[in-house]
Amino acid sequence: MINIGVIGYGYWGPNLVRNFRALDGAKVISVCDRDKEALERVKKEYDTVELLTDSRSITDSPKIDAVVIATPVSTHFELAKRSLENGKHIFVEKPFTSNQKEAESLIALAEKKKLKIMVDHTFLFTPAIKKIKEIIDNDMLGQLYYYDSTRVNLGLFQHDVNVIWDLAPHDFSGMDYLIKEKPTAIVATGSGHFHRDLEDIAYITVYFDSNIIAHFNVNWMSPVKIRTTLIGGEKKMLVWNDLETDEKIKIYDKGVKIDNAESMYKLLVEYRSGDMWAPRLEHVEALKTETKYFLDCIRDNTVPINDGHAGLRVVRMLEAADKSLKKNGSLVKL
Amino acid sequence: MINIGVIGYGYWGPNLVRNFRALDGAKVISVCDRDKEALERVKKEYDTVELLTDSRSITDSPKIDAVVIATPVSTHFELAKRSLENGKHIFVEKPFTSNQKEAESLIALAEKKKLKIMVDHTFLFTPAIKKIKEIIDNDMLGQLYYYDSTRVNLGLFQHDVNVIWDLAPHDFSGMDYLIKEKPTAIVATGSGHFHRDLEDIAYITVYFDSNIIAHFNVNWMSPVKIRTTLIGGEKKMLVWNDLETDEKIKIYDKGVKIDNAESMYKLLVEYRSGDMWAPRLEHVEALKTETKYFLDCIRDNTVPINDGHAGLRVVRMLEAADKSLKKNGSLVKL
Amino acid sequence: MINIGVIGYGYWGPNLVRNFRALDGAKVISVCDRDKEALERVKKEYDTVELLTDSRSITDSPKIDAVVIATPVSTHFELAKRSLENGKHIFVEKPFTSNQKEAESLIALAEKKKLKIMVDHTFLFTPAIKKIKEIIDNDMLGQLYYYDSTRVNLGLFQHDVNVIWDLAPHDFSGMDYLIKEKPTAIVATGSGHFHRDLEDIAYITVYFDSNIIAHFNVNWMSPVKIRTTLIGGEKKMLVWNDLETDEKIKIYDKGVKIDNAESMYKLLVEYRSGDMWAPRLEHVEALKTETKYFLDCIRDNTVPINDGHAGLRVVRMLEAADKSLKKNGSLVKL
Amino acid sequence: MINIGVIGYGYWGPNLVRNFRALDGAKVISVCDRDKEALERVKKEYDTVELLTDSRSITDSPKIDAVVIATPVSTHFELAKRSLENGKHIFVEKPFTSNQKEAESLIALAEKKKLKIMVDHTFLFTPAIKKIKEIIDNDMLGQLYYYDSTRVNLGLFQHDVNVIWDLAPHDFSGMDYLIKEKPTAIVATGSGHFHRDLEDIAYITVYFDSNIIAHFNVNWMSPVKIRTTLIGGEKKMLVWNDLETDEKIKIYDKGVKIDNAESMYKLLVEYRSGDMWAPRLEHVEALKTETKYFLDCIRDNTVPINDGHAGLRVVRMLEAADKSLKKNGSLVKL
Repeated sequence: MINIGVIGYGYWGPNLVRNFRALDGAKVISVCDRDKEALERVKKEYDTVELLTDSRSITDSPKIDAVVIATPVSTHFELAKRSLENGKHIFVEKPFTSNQKEAESLIALAEKKKLKIMVDHTFLFTPAIKKIKEIIDNDMLGQLYYYDSTRVNLGLFQHDVNVIWDLAPHDFSGMDYLIKEKPTAIVATGSGHFHRDLEDIAYITVYFDSNIIAHFNVNWMSPVKIRTTLIGGEKKMLVWNDLETDEKIKIYDKGVKIDNAESMYKLLVEYRSGDMWAPRLEHVEALKTETKYFLDCIRDNTVPINDGHAGLRVVRMLEAADKSLKKNGSLVKL
Repeated sequence: MINIGVIGYGYWGPNLVRNFRALDGAKVISVCDRDKEALERVKKEYDTVELLTDSRSITDSPKIDAVVIATPVSTHFELAKRSLENGKHIFVEKPFTSNQKEAESLIALAEKKKLKIMVDHTFLFTPAIKKIKEIIDNDMLGQLYYYDSTRVNLGLFQHDVNVIWDLAPHDFSGMDYLIKEKPTAIVATGSGHFHRDLEDIAYITVYFDSNIIAHFNVNWMSPVKIRTTLIGGEKKMLVWNDLETDEKIKIYDKGVKIDNAESMYKLLVEYRSGDMWAPRLEHVEALKTETKYFLDCIRDNTVPINDGHAGLRVVRMLEAADKSLKKNGSLVKL
Repeated sequence: MINIGVIGYGYWGPNLVRNFRALDGAKVISVCDRDKEALERVKKEYDTVELLTDSRSITDSPKIDAVVIATPVSTHFELAKRSLENGKHIFVEKPFTSNQKEAESLIALAEKKKLKIMVDHTFLFTPAIKKIKEIIDNDMLGQLYYYDSTRVNLGLFQHDVNVIWDLAPHDFSGMDYLIKEKPTAIVATGSGHFHRDLEDIAYITVYFDSNIIAHFNVNWMSPVKIRTTLIGGEKKMLVWNDLETDEKIKIYDKGVKIDNAESMYKLLVEYRSGDMWAPRLEHVEALKTETKYFLDCIRDNTVPINDGHAGLRVVRMLEAADKSLKKNGSLVKL
Repeated sequence: MINIGVIGYGYWGPNLVRNFRALDGAKVISVCDRDKEALERVKKEYDTVELLTDSRSITDSPKIDAVVIATPVSTHFELAKRSLENGKHIFVEKPFTSNQKEAESLIALAEKKKLKIMVDHTFLFTPAIKKIKEIIDNDMLGQLYYYDSTRVNLGLFQHDVNVIWDLAPHDFSGMDYLIKEKPTAIVATGSGHFHRDLEDIAYITVYFDSNIIAHFNVNWMSPVKIRTTLIGGEKKMLVWNDLETDEKIKIYDKGVKIDNAESMYKLLVEYRSGDMWAPRLEHVEALKTETKYFLDCIRDNTVPINDGHAGLRVVRMLEAADKSLKKNGSLVKL
């Protein structure tokens, strides 16, 4: 039985508690939050969980085997460090840390202590990403050309981070998982509308040594959500619309050969050039899969796909994007 | 009666001839193309039109009042110059010219000769753009925040221009028409997959003095078309999906007020925050409206919204985007 | 505190238990199911609930105030009768009973005993139906012309009832709630493909004294779900697509006046004749609203909108439809 | 060269003239309409076509080889008869005639005279129907279970026929072409809202000897168009949404095997049970294909798929549906 303590019961915390509780082999024994109202909500739902306001009661507790950290990013490093020092595995909300140094330091500490770090890149455990991974690994798309993601919604303006730190971690972690090659440079542009210094719209281009190109459109200023990713390859192209109910993933054949003027003109007025295929996806909660995987990695001593290094790679991209953004699109090497 | 000569009968030429022919008050008297097969196609459709292979027979002909130039962009300047010098109004395919200098020179010549230049920014005459213009001018969206366009399809690889020169003129002309403020700088990134030096994917950010930001995603590497523009404002946000049959334009209210943690959490799991409204659009061929407008501007001696200056503004953006692209995203002032 | 006993923990039971448990003022104290595996699932989720295999331990228990009956329809009458006789309020799965007589008898018994019957017409508590009710009651659609529903999915073939008894209760209860006028006659047609005598596809027309007409298309033979209802009125028409994520309800204006041949021809090639409006809907679980409403009705002694009489009206339509179906579409008076 | 005379230049006539004119081997030499304005429109478009107001100048003209009849259905018989008697092939708008007798008499006359009858079931020549025919003939769907069509739009109220005679011919001709087995009985219900005696909404069930069932939902009272056909079979199910731009046809696999309670419950909350495939369709105008086919059938003396017999089968269904409708759903044998 792995005893779990959860720090932070805001937006995401309740989902973490619910999923960890439902697992065989784990027990959520304490939840900590500075906010009394949050603890009231825990109490109402789960009467047997210990309620705490001081995070040390979790990070330093001898009863706890693993700490789930679901607090603002600025506090991750401190809480993670204390947990690791006290011999606990950690499950940390994304983004992993506020900067690369913190991430590197936590990775080193966990390795020394032989403890697991899992960064909550929930995205990687969605049925959609799992299917896309399978499609790419089976070389159905052929050599990859581009990864182009749009993530748009109404944002949360009391944040202390800009839209890149809020929205891009999802897509950066997805790209990091799906594309084997590692990026080499970043260009970011953007604008702030409520606070000039807190960008609420940003456009990020990621270069690779090969001619793959990735692009991320993140935007907090839209009353309607958009969640679309295009992944183009030599053979086929995949469109992932995460808001579709039953056709989240569509794969398009190239279809036609363009060999003369007439076939070109014809193509110009058509909507697509080949057949489309939409694989059925399982309906499983990603966090259910991920929390179970956390327990498995601890028990079997395996390295998670979303370990500290994956978290670090995402943080590195976030820092680079932010730096380029401040310089209106200057290229920043990774 | 305005006598029209058309130079170029490739992809777009047939549409121009058909629309000009259908107008009261105009007569398409000659069509010129170097390609005999193209002329065969003219002959089959319209038995009374004169078929020519030398463009001088049109630009220099005393019978012709207006010349329609539907040839590759590299030839626009020469053909337009000769037409103007010979006292003919011109209707020129977009992009207007290969560079700013050519555009400026043609504008000066037309002004001297008191002739009309119309650049075929067909886009401005679609029922969708006309409705959007009306919505923006009525201040329904409030102060504008962003203009974000995606234009994706399978491209034509034998082109002598890259994807920016091929696809962006549509969207640049749209933005130029819809947003009164003029842009001040451009950042572009991109990549070429078939020819390293001929970009087939590009991402362009356009800065303004105010905090409006515009972004253009143009991509030749997709077997399915995407044509989406988001226009966000202080009050509402508009989504224009040009491939939808009956809901091309959707306008979203902000709706909710986010005033506490709970309303924030709730928003995170919802798809949109307010009502949506989709105005009905007329079904009219844009080119029909535009060709009629060309005749009207000549007859009434009015300045077209898509005159040489509009053409120049688009060419200036194309040049700047191209320059930034070659430098991996360096800011280029306009 | 209202003490609740639940009989039946199959497909819908878990949702009932979860929702009743989450309410202030109610306590789920026992769950009964003949299937041991079902009880195992209860135990795993809720360790304090009493597990029973004999329904009498609930219907006859002095600890229980209200009985939730989530068993096959053939058992409803017996369980409901015993519960009422023992002084318990009942919350019964739809359809209420196997026939009108049973329903009438239960209604009489509950009235004598001053107990509440609520039939689980969950549909009436969806944000969509609540919004539609509001739209109709505000006379936005004008005088109603038609109610046209399609409910298609892959069906469950081990059922002892045909597709009408399985799928139509949802839509019959919706129509009964939304349209004040009561229907007068029914015509039903259909076909069975696996068992000639167990129809898996049926088409039901419902006549009213006025010229409103209702139609229900229910079909178990489709690997993809369809859930669409059209409600047409004198002024506007409403389309409810329950599988859309963010545009479940769309309301179409008539828009144009057709006054001559040309406007008619134009209409023929267009997709719609007026503007469309899609109101935002709340994201609330219908069953959460309904279970709370059950407690409120008991406490405040109010008559539920989904009381025994509503249940009876639906059963009466089911019986009539079934009768017409067996006679290949003969009109059956209600 | 086949010389063609066209009678009727209302809504559909212009499309017929344009398409016949564009064909090699045909010449539209005269157009007849009682309405002077209609003839004006012909003149403006095509200056060489002879304009007539008396249909006899076409049916009796020695210059004419084939007569295209695009007038109201009540006039078809008379015009068709005269044309055939004068040795002309005929191309007749759907529905073929006002009743079976007329159709049978024309068929006999054409056979005697060795002339071609083509009924303008344009639908059969759409890329969608051609692809569906191919899919069914290749047994991709398996044994057919149902054909379920919905055709909804704002109707034309000055008509002298009801909604069945106006809208159902499209779908009846489609079903007749796609399903080899012939129907045996019809049940129709419906209602009139503007004129009690002129139904504007109707629901038609068609029975076959096997357990295939067909259903047609035709409705004139909707400001938005709906054009959807479901064709379900033993193996797969096809959805044809004619208003989609690029995904008109979708084919759904059954996918899962339902073998226990858990897999059933799971299915209930999912949207579909298997993969989906959307074949690309050609963009060709159906009428272009059909008019060319008319010439081919005349030249090669082949029997059209849409000959007089096909026209008769559709008329027979229309008459039966109308008869059942008047009796509120009584079964009418075919």
